[in-house]
Amino acid sequence: MLPENSLKWGRSDNIIRELSAYGAARKAEISAENVFDFSIGNPSVPAPDCVKQAILEAMEQDTADLHAYTPAPGLMSLRRAIADDLCERGADVSPELVYVTCGASAGLAVSMRALLLPGEQVITFAPFFPEYSVFAEAAGGQLIALPPDEKLQPDVQALKAALNPLTKAIIINSPNNPSGVIISPEKLSELCDILRAAEAEFGHTIYLVSDEPYRELVYGGEEIPCPLCYYDNSILCYSFSKSLSLPGERIGYLAVNGGMADKADVFAALCGAARSCGYINAPSLIQRVVEKCLTATADISVYKENRRLLYEGLCACGFDCVYPDGAFYLFLKCPEPDARAFSQRAKKHELLLVPSDDFGLPGYVRVAYCVSPEMIKRALPAFNKLAEEYGL
Amino acid sequence: MLPENSLKWGRSDNIIRELSAYGAARKAEISAENVFDFSIGNPSVPAPDCVKQAILEAMEQDTADLHAYTPAPGLMSLRRAIADDLCERGADVSPELVYVTCGASAGLAVSMRALLLPGEQVITFAPFFPEYSVFAEAAGGQLIALPPDEKLQPDVQALKAALNPLTKAIIINSPNNPSGVIISPEKLSELCDILRAAEAEFGHTIYLVSDEPYRELVYGGEEIPCPLCYYDNSILCYSFSKSLSLPGERIGYLAVNGGMADKADVFAALCGAARSCGYINAPSLIQRVVEKCLTATADISVYKENRRLLYEGLCACGFDCVYPDGAFYLFLKCPEPDARAFSQRAKKHELLLVPSDDFGLPGYVRVAYCVSPEMIKRALPAFNKLAEEYGL
Repeated sequence: MLPENSLKWGRSDNIIRELSAYGAARKAEISAENVFDFSIGNPSVPAPDCVKQAILEAMEQDTADLHAYTPAPGLMSLRRAIADDLCERGADVSPELVYVTCGASAGLAVSMRALLLPGEQVITFAPFFPEYSVFAEAAGGQLIALPPDEKLQPDVQALKAALNPLTKAIIINSPNNPSGVIISPEKLSELCDILRAAEAEFGHTIYLVSDEPYRELVYGGEEIPCPLCYYDNSILCYSFSKSLSLPGERIGYLAVNGGMADKADVFAALCGAARSCGYINAPSLIQRVVEKCLTATADISVYKENRRLLYEGLCACGFDCVYPDGAFYLFLKCPEPDARAFSQRAKKHELLLVPSDDFGLPGYVRVAYCVSPEMIKRALPAFNKLAEEYGL
Repeated sequence: MLPENSLKWGRSDNIIRELSAYGAARKAEISAENVFDFSIGNPSVPAPDCVKQAILEAMEQDTADLHAYTPAPGLMSLRRAIADDLCERGADVSPELVYVTCGASAGLAVSMRALLLPGEQVITFAPFFPEYSVFAEAAGGQLIALPPDEKLQPDVQALKAALNPLTKAIIINSPNNPSGVIISPEKLSELCDILRAAEAEFGHTIYLVSDEPYRELVYGGEEIPCPLCYYDNSILCYSFSKSLSLPGERIGYLAVNGGMADKADVFAALCGAARSCGYINAPSLIQRVVEKCLTATADISVYKENRRLLYEGLCACGFDCVYPDGAFYLFLKCPEPDARAFSQRAKKHELLLVPSDDFGLPGYVRVAYCVSPEMIKRALPAFNKLAEEYGL
């Protein structure tokens, strides 16, 4: 007998990986330019030059030191640089409260284990990254997903109704995967007021975990409010995967708000949870690289142009789309209620679109536009035919 | 209220890190050459040239691909190369049964979560790597540590007596951290016979997890038997940290024996456990590097010479030492029963030695000889003075 959960998580279909594997096979069959793979959130833009430069410079160093263990929470110089960067954004974070992680997923998995007692709940808003529920369950807790409001913003009234004595944390994600929606400063402020009221009512801390790997991916000068400036009991979970186009290198961080009353305990619990998962330190060479490239980004103008091409193209086909303020995903409302059926039908036109069911909000498909602009142009006639099938 | 275990693991003293931090501070005080830091298992020999070459070659490639997500269990080309290497060592492993991990700690933490049901036990032999108990507890299980025999080999009679219906797995570690002892083929064979008998008696599988990051670190042509050739229900847990001097880069693998009856289930459970801990893939650049350097090693002749210098030097001082067949640790029997007190006394001579209590076998100190030969030579007079204090 093996643990049921581990088996379930190991076996469960991952629709994104399935579509992407299907896409790879289909490309081999009918050639790559005839398959329109919008399934996966793998940055299409290369890492900025500073990444390559930093790696080459590191190669000039004494390599025994370069590849050695670092302290578990990361190199102090990197932690200091991250804290400085967050302070410049208005947050109150000291280097001692920064933990460099193997990406945002590691940060989230560790956070859930550091915060949740068995049976406690973490609330999030649909649509949401499906791994949230895996991480909450693995920590012995439970994920409660609330439907968003009509603009796909967090529904604060639904939050108010859902908060209860078992609520230990909430996770927000802005810009959002899969919708591209950004939580406005007003909405965030309202949400934090509600959390503070609930803390007072239930007599315990409710932690706000802000999952923000897409923070840098905004295209119209929108302000991404820093949740640490709005709520003391907050933890920021960041990844360099998207901003620096380094998803495979697994590097990000957790930052605990300096204003949090039990910040030392929370940081200790994060350290312990990371240790218990077998994390020793984030990859050492890449720690040095991101320290040198902390505020750099890949050329995100490509995504901005893709967004325009795709949004205008899909609207012209007659599709109803959520205009994405950030990230590199477009959320398309399916012209039939069953998103899986729509995704299947799209496949016949070689369009690979992820049905939204696993994101907790049925009826949409996620169109990842971290692809070449040429593919979008080639795909639009196929989208058009698909629209015609639905009489759009 | 935060989870007790996460707090405990985050707060608990780590004697190795404490000593090493003390060493760093002391070096600043009295200058580096006057401190004899034998506390930490960080390879002193640089990574072999092929590592640098592989990184530089990778930099010539298309970097979008280079830093992209890989499949969760690793690049298929790397998994294939690892399986081929294991097959050459006589094991039966297919690429589909190889999971590339973020080092051996990740592999062990994931294995425990993949194998143990709540309350089940995993047996190991003292002295052992202290994280084993963290990983077992984090999986809801319990670590049972058995004392070794007089040669510090696994005591198979003690194993026989300890096996019970709750035993789900055993962990072996050869060459051993902290003792340097290698499990002989005869001992391994005996041990596996006992496990098979217990499987038959209790009617369930007992998994053998072989933790072997020091496999390549042997100095006298000793044969390190491959446990996969001895026992069908076995999982190999490897790390490139020591062989390639890459401990900070976090890369290793799990390999499930092709002869295991429920290998597909076990592999699925490993995938699920890794997913639940937030592991996405092992660092992508380094995956490509180890693929090119799979059978290379750092220049381990330095450790061999260190072993000679240290062993002969300590014996000449009158200390009773376990002759280390492998790894880069020497286990010294303390001339007083309390290893912590002995370690404290050694500190007065600027000798940083790890007391063995946390390794589950009191009365010894671990002397890590992954240091410069010059430091060993400089340290011997201090060891001599220490010996004199004990009247040796």
